[in-house]
Amino acid sequence: MIGGRGADDDGVADAEAGFEVLDDFERFSQVDDVFCRSWWDESIRDERSERFYATYRRPLTEWRRANGFTQRDYALRNASWHVSDVFTEMYEDRDRRDGFLDPLSMLKDGPDTGLVPESPEESTRHLKQVAKVFGADLVGITAFDERWVYTERFSSTTGEAKPNDLPDGLTSVVVIGQSMDPDLIRTAPSALSGTATGLGYSQDAAVLLGVAQYIRNLGYQAVPSMNDTALAIPLAIQAGLGEYGRHGLVITPEFGARLRFGKIFTDLPLVSDRPRSFGVKEFCEQCDRCAEACPASAIPHGGPVAVALNRSGLTGVRKWSVDGEACFGYWSKINSDCAICVRICPFTRDYSKPVNRWWRRLAGTRLRGVMLRLDDRLGGGRRLKPNDWWAGLASRRPSRWSPRSPRSPVRR
Amino acid sequence: MIGGRGADDDGVADAEAGFEVLDDFERFSQVDDVFCRSWWDESIRDERSERFYATYRRPLTEWRRANGFTQRDYALRNASWHVSDVFTEMYEDRDRRDGFLDPLSMLKDGPDTGLVPESPEESTRHLKQVAKVFGADLVGITAFDERWVYTERFSSTTGEAKPNDLPDGLTSVVVIGQSMDPDLIRTAPSALSGTATGLGYSQDAAVLLGVAQYIRNLGYQAVPSMNDTALAIPLAIQAGLGEYGRHGLVITPEFGARLRFGKIFTDLPLVSDRPRSFGVKEFCEQCDRCAEACPASAIPHGGPVAVALNRSGLTGVRKWSVDGEACFGYWSKINSDCAICVRICPFTRDYSKPVNRWWRRLAGTRLRGVMLRLDDRLGGGRRLKPNDWWAGLASRRPSRWSPRSPRSPVRR
Repeated sequence: MIGGRGADDDGVADAEAGFEVLDDFERFSQVDDVFCRSWWDESIRDERSERFYATYRRPLTEWRRANGFTQRDYALRNASWHVSDVFTEMYEDRDRRDGFLDPLSMLKDGPDTGLVPESPEESTRHLKQVAKVFGADLVGITAFDERWVYTERFSSTTGEAKPNDLPDGLTSVVVIGQSMDPDLIRTAPSALSGTATGLGYSQDAAVLLGVAQYIRNLGYQAVPSMNDTALAIPLAIQAGLGEYGRHGLVITPEFGARLRFGKIFTDLPLVSDRPRSFGVKEFCEQCDRCAEACPASAIPHGGPVAVALNRSGLTGVRKWSVDGEACFGYWSKINSDCAICVRICPFTRDYSKPVNRWWRRLAGTRLRGVMLRLDDRLGGGRRLKPNDWWAGLASRRPSRWSPRSPRSPVRR
Repeated sequence: MIGGRGADDDGVADAEAGFEVLDDFERFSQVDDVFCRSWWDESIRDERSERFYATYRRPLTEWRRANGFTQRDYALRNASWHVSDVFTEMYEDRDRRDGFLDPLSMLKDGPDTGLVPESPEESTRHLKQVAKVFGADLVGITAFDERWVYTERFSSTTGEAKPNDLPDGLTSVVVIGQSMDPDLIRTAPSALSGTATGLGYSQDAAVLLGVAQYIRNLGYQAVPSMNDTALAIPLAIQAGLGEYGRHGLVITPEFGARLRFGKIFTDLPLVSDRPRSFGVKEFCEQCDRCAEACPASAIPHGGPVAVALNRSGLTGVRKWSVDGEACFGYWSKINSDCAICVRICPFTRDYSKPVNRWWRRLAGTRLRGVMLRLDDRLGGGRRLKPNDWWAGLASRRPSRWSPRSPRSPVRR
């Protein structure tokens, strides 16, 4: 049994991170992840889920005439996954799916001898600068916390569990956030909006590989990970990137819920960040816009609960628990991933605009109810029609997202 | 013999592009490229050039104590190349070096049947939007022009020429520009500044693969190319991305000379762009800042000439001709690539600042001499010390580049 973590432990205390880990907590096995279950569990796998995956491998040329689900939309969505797919598929013959079931492994050895020692403070400052120059939108650091590491991986070759091996001596986790394209997210749900997901993974893979290779070149260990190896969300919260939201996503002060997270496990001595709280929990208690909007009813109304809804949920943590089965079922039904909850979340705004920074500040106070109604009145997370995206009209259909800069240097 | 191209031809007339192609023009063989010669030509290859390449493969842990050439600088520089290297090294056992000696080949097949036809105007608008969402900083289109296609490729396995095969029917070239990190370029020359080059290639590879896969998913051919297959510079100029400068680089209105170019050869019907002229030629005639600053004296003073300086130059084009042998010799000597000419070029400025847009406008008029002196007086392309970059002081050492936004979302 692994229970809660107090302030005396090495890492962040659960109270500070806003976690309520109970005595019956159990580490998660990736075999129970709903995506893995869609390979081995006949209660999840069906004709629709098969088609869902097949059309990522080969673009549809005809599915339905619906706006956002045409050949052009699938052509772009699948292309956006391409770089991520290259890494994932590279070692399939060795029973690896890098970035999804196994860590990214396309790395070169570092030098035989290590760096002239830097202090952890210097290493941390340099590492964050390096992550930034590689294109990371957010970077945070937290102590290695085994509770969030999967008990086992899933083998797509055998359809069964396999060991989740990590090298010894890992002490820190560098958590990296990549923001997703705001205009594409506005078109959710659609195959087109899935482009934001694919681009997010492709960029995440490139940034994680670059930063991990930098750490290796300094003479230390670095294991870059996307969906494999460990749960990203508690690590991102411990690393101070944001707070947990009703929709089960991390809400960040910089991008709201419009992010993907990757992480690098390392033994490079680093200084950890502290969790940040800016009023999300209290806001989500009042707001259930995502729960209302979810067509699969996968997002809970009401308060946090300590019960996993099904085997794809986490046992022994009191939290808002999303129903992964219902969520994935909807993805299969519409034949693309869905991001309605990201689009609809009132925190998903363009914080380069002063008005939105004011909104965020007041949403963290007792005025949160007013801020919620204000967001409603101003259109909330209104959907952008995919055809309007293709017609280049995103900037003429403004919302709480910014239109693209009129000085954008790309010639059109 | 292939001479100049008139206004009657299908593509852009040479006069409009500012090209002077003479009767003795000869297409270039990549075997004569100075990088290829450093593999096979004993007059180029020496101990220094060997070390130059070796330290890209394995980071130095000790070379010299000089600011910008420490283990940390090489650790970062090599990591920045990592994603590009993955693609380049993937098929070495098939005598391919993708992106350098051969086109990028990591692509999936498109569908068996093509798209419901779009007009070339629609395809062009959509393609530019797609390139932008993939992260392209500039995109232009020009007609396929065989003159700039290499007569042969170089095989790193045999050290000899091999055929430069392209599929039949290619009609257009999509030229993509990736801007390089401004703060890193400010530290040139250094191993640290080579990070901007590596990141540029890594990003270029990812963007080219994504956009090419999109075109394939529409049912058309797409051959993505970095340094392989054809000369990028005349294609970028024909595609309207910028003008030719004294340093042999394309000067763009958006980023000055701070760019890398990739290109995609395709048969997707597209509308070509026209060349743009904004006074660069007249400016470079007066300015020889890059020629003065080049430690290898590889950049010419005076006017354009029609003679290739050595076998790595192009025959039969009157232009400012850079001495590739001298340039590469300096890279070998300092053991990293050099970008002094990019840094020093007065057009390399941050054009998000209104003052720099005004400077550009006036530099295209008879006031160009005044603008040149003004740039001198205001510090020109002053070098940023690599240690100051690592200390995060770039924004406190302003120049005509912008400091990074103080609202940068990365937490440090």
